[in-house]
Amino acid sequence: MLINCVAYQDGKKMADIPVEDISDYLEKPETFVWVALRDAQPEELATMQHEFGLHELAVEDASRGHQRPKIEEYGDSLFVVVKTIECHGGEVAVGEVDIFVGQNYVLSSRDGDSQQGFQSVRARAEKEPHMLRLGPAFVLYALMDAVVDRYFPVLDMLETELEKIEELIFTQGRQRDNIQRLYELKGKVTTVRHVVAPLMEAVGRLHGGRVPSMCLETQEYFRDVHDHLHRINASLDGIRDTIATAIQVNLSMTAIEESEVNKRLAAWAAIFAIVTAFAGLWGMNFKYMPELDWKFGYPMAIAIMIGVCLYLHRRFKKAGWL
Amino acid sequence: MLINCVAYQDGKKMADIPVEDISDYLEKPETFVWVALRDAQPEELATMQHEFGLHELAVEDASRGHQRPKIEEYGDSLFVVVKTIECHGGEVAVGEVDIFVGQNYVLSSRDGDSQQGFQSVRARAEKEPHMLRLGPAFVLYALMDAVVDRYFPVLDMLETELEKIEELIFTQGRQRDNIQRLYELKGKVTTVRHVVAPLMEAVGRLHGGRVPSMCLETQEYFRDVHDHLHRINASLDGIRDTIATAIQVNLSMTAIEESEVNKRLAAWAAIFAIVTAFAGLWGMNFKYMPELDWKFGYPMAIAIMIGVCLYLHRRFKKAGWL
Amino acid sequence: MLINCVAYQDGKKMADIPVEDISDYLEKPETFVWVALRDAQPEELATMQHEFGLHELAVEDASRGHQRPKIEEYGDSLFVVVKTIECHGGEVAVGEVDIFVGQNYVLSSRDGDSQQGFQSVRARAEKEPHMLRLGPAFVLYALMDAVVDRYFPVLDMLETELEKIEELIFTQGRQRDNIQRLYELKGKVTTVRHVVAPLMEAVGRLHGGRVPSMCLETQEYFRDVHDHLHRINASLDGIRDTIATAIQVNLSMTAIEESEVNKRLAAWAAIFAIVTAFAGLWGMNFKYMPELDWKFGYPMAIAIMIGVCLYLHRRFKKAGWL
Amino acid sequence: MLINCVAYQDGKKMADIPVEDISDYLEKPETFVWVALRDAQPEELATMQHEFGLHELAVEDASRGHQRPKIEEYGDSLFVVVKTIECHGGEVAVGEVDIFVGQNYVLSSRDGDSQQGFQSVRARAEKEPHMLRLGPAFVLYALMDAVVDRYFPVLDMLETELEKIEELIFTQGRQRDNIQRLYELKGKVTTVRHVVAPLMEAVGRLHGGRVPSMCLETQEYFRDVHDHLHRINASLDGIRDTIATAIQVNLSMTAIEESEVNKRLAAWAAIFAIVTAFAGLWGMNFKYMPELDWKFGYPMAIAIMIGVCLYLHRRFKKAGWL
Amino acid sequence: MLINCVAYQDGKKMADIPVEDISDYLEKPETFVWVALRDAQPEELATMQHEFGLHELAVEDASRGHQRPKIEEYGDSLFVVVKTIECHGGEVAVGEVDIFVGQNYVLSSRDGDSQQGFQSVRARAEKEPHMLRLGPAFVLYALMDAVVDRYFPVLDMLETELEKIEELIFTQGRQRDNIQRLYELKGKVTTVRHVVAPLMEAVGRLHGGRVPSMCLETQEYFRDVHDHLHRINASLDGIRDTIATAIQVNLSMTAIEESEVNKRLAAWAAIFAIVTAFAGLWGMNFKYMPELDWKFGYPMAIAIMIGVCLYLHRRFKKAGWL
Repeated sequence: MLINCVAYQDGKKMADIPVEDISDYLEKPETFVWVALRDAQPEELATMQHEFGLHELAVEDASRGHQRPKIEEYGDSLFVVVKTIECHGGEVAVGEVDIFVGQNYVLSSRDGDSQQGFQSVRARAEKEPHMLRLGPAFVLYALMDAVVDRYFPVLDMLETELEKIEELIFTQGRQRDNIQRLYELKGKVTTVRHVVAPLMEAVGRLHGGRVPSMCLETQEYFRDVHDHLHRINASLDGIRDTIATAIQVNLSMTAIEESEVNKRLAAWAAIFAIVTAFAGLWGMNFKYMPELDWKFGYPMAIAIMIGVCLYLHRRFKKAGWL
Repeated sequence: MLINCVAYQDGKKMADIPVEDISDYLEKPETFVWVALRDAQPEELATMQHEFGLHELAVEDASRGHQRPKIEEYGDSLFVVVKTIECHGGEVAVGEVDIFVGQNYVLSSRDGDSQQGFQSVRARAEKEPHMLRLGPAFVLYALMDAVVDRYFPVLDMLETELEKIEELIFTQGRQRDNIQRLYELKGKVTTVRHVVAPLMEAVGRLHGGRVPSMCLETQEYFRDVHDHLHRINASLDGIRDTIATAIQVNLSMTAIEESEVNKRLAAWAAIFAIVTAFAGLWGMNFKYMPELDWKFGYPMAIAIMIGVCLYLHRRFKKAGWL
Repeated sequence: MLINCVAYQDGKKMADIPVEDISDYLEKPETFVWVALRDAQPEELATMQHEFGLHELAVEDASRGHQRPKIEEYGDSLFVVVKTIECHGGEVAVGEVDIFVGQNYVLSSRDGDSQQGFQSVRARAEKEPHMLRLGPAFVLYALMDAVVDRYFPVLDMLETELEKIEELIFTQGRQRDNIQRLYELKGKVTTVRHVVAPLMEAVGRLHGGRVPSMCLETQEYFRDVHDHLHRINASLDGIRDTIATAIQVNLSMTAIEESEVNKRLAAWAAIFAIVTAFAGLWGMNFKYMPELDWKFGYPMAIAIMIGVCLYLHRRFKKAGWL
Repeated sequence: MLINCVAYQDGKKMADIPVEDISDYLEKPETFVWVALRDAQPEELATMQHEFGLHELAVEDASRGHQRPKIEEYGDSLFVVVKTIECHGGEVAVGEVDIFVGQNYVLSSRDGDSQQGFQSVRARAEKEPHMLRLGPAFVLYALMDAVVDRYFPVLDMLETELEKIEELIFTQGRQRDNIQRLYELKGKVTTVRHVVAPLMEAVGRLHGGRVPSMCLETQEYFRDVHDHLHRINASLDGIRDTIATAIQVNLSMTAIEESEVNKRLAAWAAIFAIVTAFAGLWGMNFKYMPELDWKFGYPMAIAIMIGVCLYLHRRFKKAGWL
Repeated sequence: MLINCVAYQDGKKMADIPVEDISDYLEKPETFVWVALRDAQPEELATMQHEFGLHELAVEDASRGHQRPKIEEYGDSLFVVVKTIECHGGEVAVGEVDIFVGQNYVLSSRDGDSQQGFQSVRARAEKEPHMLRLGPAFVLYALMDAVVDRYFPVLDMLETELEKIEELIFTQGRQRDNIQRLYELKGKVTTVRHVVAPLMEAVGRLHGGRVPSMCLETQEYFRDVHDHLHRINASLDGIRDTIATAIQVNLSMTAIEESEVNKRLAAWAAIFAIVTAFAGLWGMNFKYMPELDWKFGYPMAIAIMIGVCLYLHRRFKKAGWL
């Protein structure tokens, strides 16, 4: 589905143009065309391939989808795959944006899984003609910057979730719940990492060292995106590491709690066992058991039992078992 | 066993040719010969070595089999080992394809363990003469691309298996089964990784940087294969990581379940122990135990016992032990 | 909030100057301006950007804060982010200092979270005109050196805390406390590492290899800072490694203690069970149980029970269970 | 102990020569001398040092022994240390071979721990004069190839051992044995890895990149050795990884089995506790316990007990505890 | 404290010289001065800085101490920090030696924690004038070689300790002791690694690649030191890895032992429970319990109990529980 198809000259919007005229505009000097698709159909991609002269392999990747984030050079043009991440009710949803960038065109194609579009990016870019004059590389930066900025709330969500679990990690009786939440959080972190890490690696090649000629002037902007990704990645690594430790701690806490419960039970068991043993003694049927005939034999027996129980109770209390 | 031996000129099939004529065709301009063997016998390989002038060490490797995936340069020619993976009833079967590529020949030798052949690759290549004109390097790409494309269903199988286990990971009483399935899955993932990782590394040297001259024109195609391998490898790493966490979680769950069962048992034991202790008390043979002579002593005793039991039961229920 | 704004010529302080005059002083030869801000407001940063010609992206980073430590080149100037760490009552507080360095200016902007300022750095620098003559690069070194020197007490605190835990790690009944303290310590170490590791990496690019021209003369000083960071980082790695081992050891100790407690309990349970079993035997109601009629049957029974108990007690003692 | 001292010219054996004549032969064109020592004594090494002009440090290393595998260049000559591995009754025995290689000599010195010698290598080399003509570098290759080929049976042994353990890993009651065997296997794998990994790294520098001039012509042969080492190393990594997982699984299995046993015991304990509690009830000495006077009171009591026991037994069976 | 101050010319000792004359000797051709300090006081270091023209930062590091092992170039001179390790009664003591090396001087400064000095190094060097003629770089090598050689006995001590623990790792009832010793050993290994690893890395830059000009002629000697450090480091890695596995195995063994003890206890508990249950049955007060009136009721009851006990005992024995 075509969303926008606009020609820009010298940093300013010329006109919304029909798809068929793209190739005409591409020939004008200081002009570039910025097309936005959503849920691009094969025929649409074929038209675009024809108009812009896109490389067969890049188009194939874009129409198949489910790529890793990457930046590939095809001669003078770039094929960029970035992943969007959105939070819907605690779940992490991953979408894909494929961007073709040439000397005088940008074509972005967003799949249906990412709800947020890039109209705001276009709007802001059109308000900054001095930036837009930098051409397609700047548009690429603006799109990537928008995508990466949307990673931060997701990261916040993950960190908040981790903090919530951490608050309960030493709380008795929460082990089952905690381990389940840790495992689910780990899964989400893995999902986000698979989005962030390859993109970071790819963007790293757009500044410093051997940079595609098109991006030479906008290097510092891509370094900024790279730096954001670096920060997100470092935070993800931190979360992963903390989860790993938390899982170990959870196991330790389970063992410690179990051992505490065991001690408590054992203490009570000992107390009852004493009572039962004494009762058994005086339940024996020997003929000559003088205390049985005493008048205060029974109260005495009860007293002894209670006394022993109290003594044990105190000792266990002291030892921290009760 | 010879499967095919065909000469191509200018991207089009010339003829099926007998093995003895290969060297004649190799002298023609713009011509290359594409031979496919299966379960190659030593004598067949010897003939091929003679016809194509293959390097001794490469032929030795091919006849021995059981190589790691690799790409070796011998002067102007390449010796490529790739592994096929197939799923047979949940099991992972690994086969081997050895490919010799020179300026004007491709020789592929597939061992018997991989059931799927490469006829479809040849058929499709013959329908695209503009691609086939790129020569042996393109044929190499087509073969590798086919092999790597067949990794994806295996990856899907592994991911599906992991998801099935994950669904049950927090289910009570499944720990033994889960740990066994996780261990087996880990084994399969290791097998697949040993196929994918070295190939990825090897293919990485066919694009960017110092590329064998023969592959210069087809670089972007090999980058595509490399990218696929990268994606598979990242997914395998993800699965491995998840399995490791799942094994830890499984241990935690075992400990947690054990502790829950222990609490339940201990609660019941306590209830019975109380009854036994009381019964023991009134089973004592003291002469003067007034309550024994009461008319309603017995019902009272039973009532006390039931009362204490109910009280304990409720407390344990509240504490979440029952 | 402006703290200082001073012009230096030839290593000596010229004058405290008003902000508006900065650009005038920047034109004088052998002169540089060193400005210190705290909790810089957007308007202040805007003024500074105007006076010094700072890069838009750097200013944006500085006004947003919460950056990773980094050193970025913008043409001839550097943008440096370092993190301060302070200990407040066992807690680790992280602050941020952003430093802009150009050919003839240094601008440092400290956020409010770091209580210690850099007046002492300025004072010491002004006492060493031969060093200050090296220009803004030396000031950058002096600031970084001060920040990094303040890491050492934090490191000491972490090491002391670890040693305290280690002393108790084999003490009975401390497992719950130890695991909690280890987990908290791990969190602090992670916080400090996220401050130290990226800075170390960044400073590594200020000596040896391709160094920003401004820092060529002060390379050896930055190597010194790098070396300090290296040392801190190695210590942090050591602490992390030890914590990981300690957590495992804690789990082992929990299991070992549990098993020791279990043995002790089981031994006592066995002793009581024996008494109860014997008492049960002689409590049976068979008519012909000759020992019940013996005069010394009862003492004998008690004697037998005590005998068996003592025997068991001794055996368990020998086996190390009691 | 001198084993062989032979001069070769143009790929063919000239003669067994006495040690004193070595230096004469070294002056002849197209000639090289190949000496094999076993358990070399200091004086023998001193003679050789004199004859061949070996470097002091290399000779010192060789006479001390216990080196890591390595390849060191001393000017035009190489000093190579490789380790042999042999299996003796399940145990792994490590020996050492030191090889000095110069433009026109090869000197190998094997210590007594490795039982297999290299006579077969010499014999085969002498049958291939076209290879032997490549000179000392080829001899070095032949020796290394022989050593590395002897690693494969060891690897097989390790893999077979691992498979045997894996078959029993989910078998009840084997945990103690399994963990012991896994630990011992891990030790053997570590031993072999310390032999293989540094050699792999060292051989990697004999092909591609900056290769010692002497090995330029035989690069592809060393690549072959490198590839073998790579394969062995990958397998060792796989075994290590599997052992690590198996140890974790073993712990899980221990916990799971323990929990199963606990459940079974608890179920039986509950059944007996019920009987005891009931018996206790009817063993009380209340005067008015009507059922005690019933004619069929006793059979009824027994029946009730059996009934309750059967009911519990069935419930536990259903719950999978029995 | 000054220990030695000697001038050497052409590899031979000229004279012990007073500190004040150092600068005179430094001007003579083919001459170098070798000074050894111990527990150098600030004033001593100041004198040396003056005499040799040492770099301020290096002197500062030396006077502060507690550096990581490192090798830093200051122009033409080197500043080297190495750590000594000594064993005192099983404990590992770390000392520090700072070495300043210039074109014509060597200054070593040892702190008081390392008991062994370097007189023997000087003595041996003076006996080898052909080596000493190589100048300060050779002295640096001789010192480092001596330091590194003293690491080997420490390594032996660690390995012996590990072997002792390993012998007991599968011994029953040693878990607590083993885990404690493993933890302590781990600490010692970490200490030694922090000494060895950075030194290895630093020495690696004294041979191959870009070497300080002063060390060009002695490259092979430094490679030898590097190789020793490599060997030590590999052994340390092996020990670390084994400790990690041993800790895991220890946990498994604890769990296995616990489960074995539990089974044994449970078996005995079952046997007693049976007796108690039977005794309870015949202790019931039903009027009509015919067996109670039998003459041989009592012996029969005892016989039945013994019979059941024996039967259970045999079954448990068979199942391996007793």
